[in-house]
Amino acid sequence: MKTILILGAGLSASSLIRYLLDNSKIYNWKIRIVDQDINLVNRKLNGHDNGIALSFNALDSAERRPEIEKSDLVISMLPARFHVDVAKDCIALKTNLITPSYISEEMRELDEEAKAAGIIIMNEIGVDPGIDHMSAMKIIHAIQAKGATVTSFKSFCGGLMAPESDNNPWNYKFTWNPRNVVLAGQGGASCFIDHNEYKYVPYNRLFGRLFTTGIEGYGEFDGYANRDSLSYRKTYGLETIPTIFRGTLRRPGFCQAWNVFIELGMTDDSYKMENSEFLTPRSFLNAFLPYRPYRSVEDKFKDFLREDRQDLYEKFEWLGIFESTTPLGVCDASPAQMLEKILVGKWVLEPADKDMLVMYHEFEYEFHGEHHSITSSMVNIGEDHTFTSMSNTVGLPVAIASKMILNGDLTTLGVTLPIQPEVYNPILVELETFDIRFIEKEVQLDCKI
Amino acid sequence: MKTILILGAGLSASSLIRYLLDNSKIYNWKIRIVDQDINLVNRKLNGHDNGIALSFNALDSAERRPEIEKSDLVISMLPARFHVDVAKDCIALKTNLITPSYISEEMRELDEEAKAAGIIIMNEIGVDPGIDHMSAMKIIHAIQAKGATVTSFKSFCGGLMAPESDNNPWNYKFTWNPRNVVLAGQGGASCFIDHNEYKYVPYNRLFGRLFTTGIEGYGEFDGYANRDSLSYRKTYGLETIPTIFRGTLRRPGFCQAWNVFIELGMTDDSYKMENSEFLTPRSFLNAFLPYRPYRSVEDKFKDFLREDRQDLYEKFEWLGIFESTTPLGVCDASPAQMLEKILVGKWVLEPADKDMLVMYHEFEYEFHGEHHSITSSMVNIGEDHTFTSMSNTVGLPVAIASKMILNGDLTTLGVTLPIQPEVYNPILVELETFDIRFIEKEVQLDCKI
Repeated sequence: MKTILILGAGLSASSLIRYLLDNSKIYNWKIRIVDQDINLVNRKLNGHDNGIALSFNALDSAERRPEIEKSDLVISMLPARFHVDVAKDCIALKTNLITPSYISEEMRELDEEAKAAGIIIMNEIGVDPGIDHMSAMKIIHAIQAKGATVTSFKSFCGGLMAPESDNNPWNYKFTWNPRNVVLAGQGGASCFIDHNEYKYVPYNRLFGRLFTTGIEGYGEFDGYANRDSLSYRKTYGLETIPTIFRGTLRRPGFCQAWNVFIELGMTDDSYKMENSEFLTPRSFLNAFLPYRPYRSVEDKFKDFLREDRQDLYEKFEWLGIFESTTPLGVCDASPAQMLEKILVGKWVLEPADKDMLVMYHEFEYEFHGEHHSITSSMVNIGEDHTFTSMSNTVGLPVAIASKMILNGDLTTLGVTLPIQPEVYNPILVELETFDIRFIEKEVQLDCKI
Repeated sequence: MKTILILGAGLSASSLIRYLLDNSKIYNWKIRIVDQDINLVNRKLNGHDNGIALSFNALDSAERRPEIEKSDLVISMLPARFHVDVAKDCIALKTNLITPSYISEEMRELDEEAKAAGIIIMNEIGVDPGIDHMSAMKIIHAIQAKGATVTSFKSFCGGLMAPESDNNPWNYKFTWNPRNVVLAGQGGASCFIDHNEYKYVPYNRLFGRLFTTGIEGYGEFDGYANRDSLSYRKTYGLETIPTIFRGTLRRPGFCQAWNVFIELGMTDDSYKMENSEFLTPRSFLNAFLPYRPYRSVEDKFKDFLREDRQDLYEKFEWLGIFESTTPLGVCDASPAQMLEKILVGKWVLEPADKDMLVMYHEFEYEFHGEHHSITSSMVNIGEDHTFTSMSNTVGLPVAIASKMILNGDLTTLGVTLPIQPEVYNPILVELETFDIRFIEKEVQLDCKI
């Protein structure tokens, strides 16, 4: 009998836990889960024989270590900043670890120690990062295997709403941490390389400078640049590629409207607003508009939109930002916190809502002097508001990797991510059984782009 | 004989040193000056009997203390971040201190210790901050003395070029630290209060949301919000004032054009650009414009300006930002550092150039149910590129305050700034002899604004 310890049972852990419980009889697993909220764990275990809800402070190394010691594998679904501390315990206790999060600099530095301890620390194996790495590397390796050269790689991912639940003017609801959505893109310019020209996009233009794309059967999408695309050159072994771009997908109109919040200053998290607890949505908005005694907030906002963006107005009206009856009631709040309060009341996932995870890669490569293009797209629809597509696409690759580690199918030790065929091939194959499936198309291009 | 120790003999110290030397015979002063560049000190002393150039590390407390110990007054013209350490030495050695800089939180905390040591630490006594405080407090105290209530205070200041030297399309040259000009307004939203409404302006809109004003004989100016206006309510004893705004003045067109640099991301100082040493002005600009193979950088830039801002184009062309012959040659440079390199080559003060310091206050007050307005304006023209108006308006108030402290005319101990009549009245009177003179106008308003 093997023991799996899961730290954190939040939103994106539902599908992970279900997969592990479903497979626990076949593989003889015990699943031990800890979360601040033990009722949440019990709901997710649903009385399953092989599941045990634990009650201890997962953030406290002293409380955590005895549990890790009993385990064959730890899965950390904690907020990303806690992974390094968990990893240190896992190294000390020689226990394998999986996290779905980006490898931090501190995590990378643990590579030698992890190898010396004989363990795998597998990271970036959810979605963006995760499935994007795996599906892209499969194509990159195939292009390289036939002796061709990748000249351009653009990759997009977005957590959106399935067409049947896509029923608000923003074409968006929260399927993950709302605060992260409000702060997305802050903290430095986004950068990428386009035909060997380095390009930098500051936050105030990030949602205004879009790549538009479409997926057959699913319509149009806008993509905005997702932080530092340049570092992926090394990760993907494409050090000299002339064009690399990673972006986040939203439905048309979303980014243009979101940019209005940024321009106004309403996503700023760096200061507290005076008397924030008394601000209504209307007075919150008005704090970013000029004083004009004979002009309404609505009219001042329309002035701000300028002539060419009046079509965005209804999106804001729908959010209730002109409402003046009830204060938002957030004490000592930054603009970003005030905006989040408005949005969580509106972009809420209803129980029957289905979300949709969209991924789209576009490759160009040169082979025998000819230019080719491959596109690879994946659209996955969630089951409901618990087993969302977000939960499935994050949780299932983690779960499958867990199975592979426990079965001894993964052999590369150290701090790693799923860019090797031995990792991505079986995972991509099994994900297809969950309808997480990439459709690839190849065309020969007439001329060099 | 009294001894004055000046730490730092940079740009803004020229007029200070001249005043002190000119008065040293009358008052029996020795002026001891230290700077990294002893030749600079010697040039400014020009062989004067009462001046001594010193050579030690003014930033090293151990080297500084013996010099402070010999002195009756220390004037710190060092960069603002060093003032607190100097103040601690002055407290330990019971020596008075003057700095022209804003009182930092750490400086404020030294108030009790300074009082206990029996010394004056006078701050914010240059220009913006300095002359603005003094000229404003004189009017505020006069309004309050007759039992009226100040309802609005707007205050603007700008270091610009005298009309006869104002000969480039930006109507601007550097009269102080270029880096500070490039970074101006960064680091948080600017905030003020307008008719009891708190207003916040994010950096990306700061130079786009302007107050326009004019001064008779000197034409039009634009003012952009200068950081946190709210804290001045306490400083000026106007805690419940419905409107308070502090702004920085530029000539019309400057701010609109500067905003283009901000929008593009060219003032960002938070990251280093790839291969920055090889970038020409043209490739630097192009890094912030999209890749368009059949469109020139000029055309892409015009696209970015949009139809309504094409009149700004010549300003950028004049700066040479489309030049592609010579790399700027700055290694590991942030966008802000690259931009600074371009600007310092263009916005340079020629030897015969005269700068111009402009200050403008606008008060409204209520008295016996009637509404009144007072404006107070000061325009001062520099002598040449050494005795600039910037140097005169910073250095002369510091110099006059030095005289007052040494003569025993200032009695308020502790960490202070020039907002008391005993300080500002004699200084404002003496500044008039240097043609730094405020013109006040009072009007009764027809209706409440």
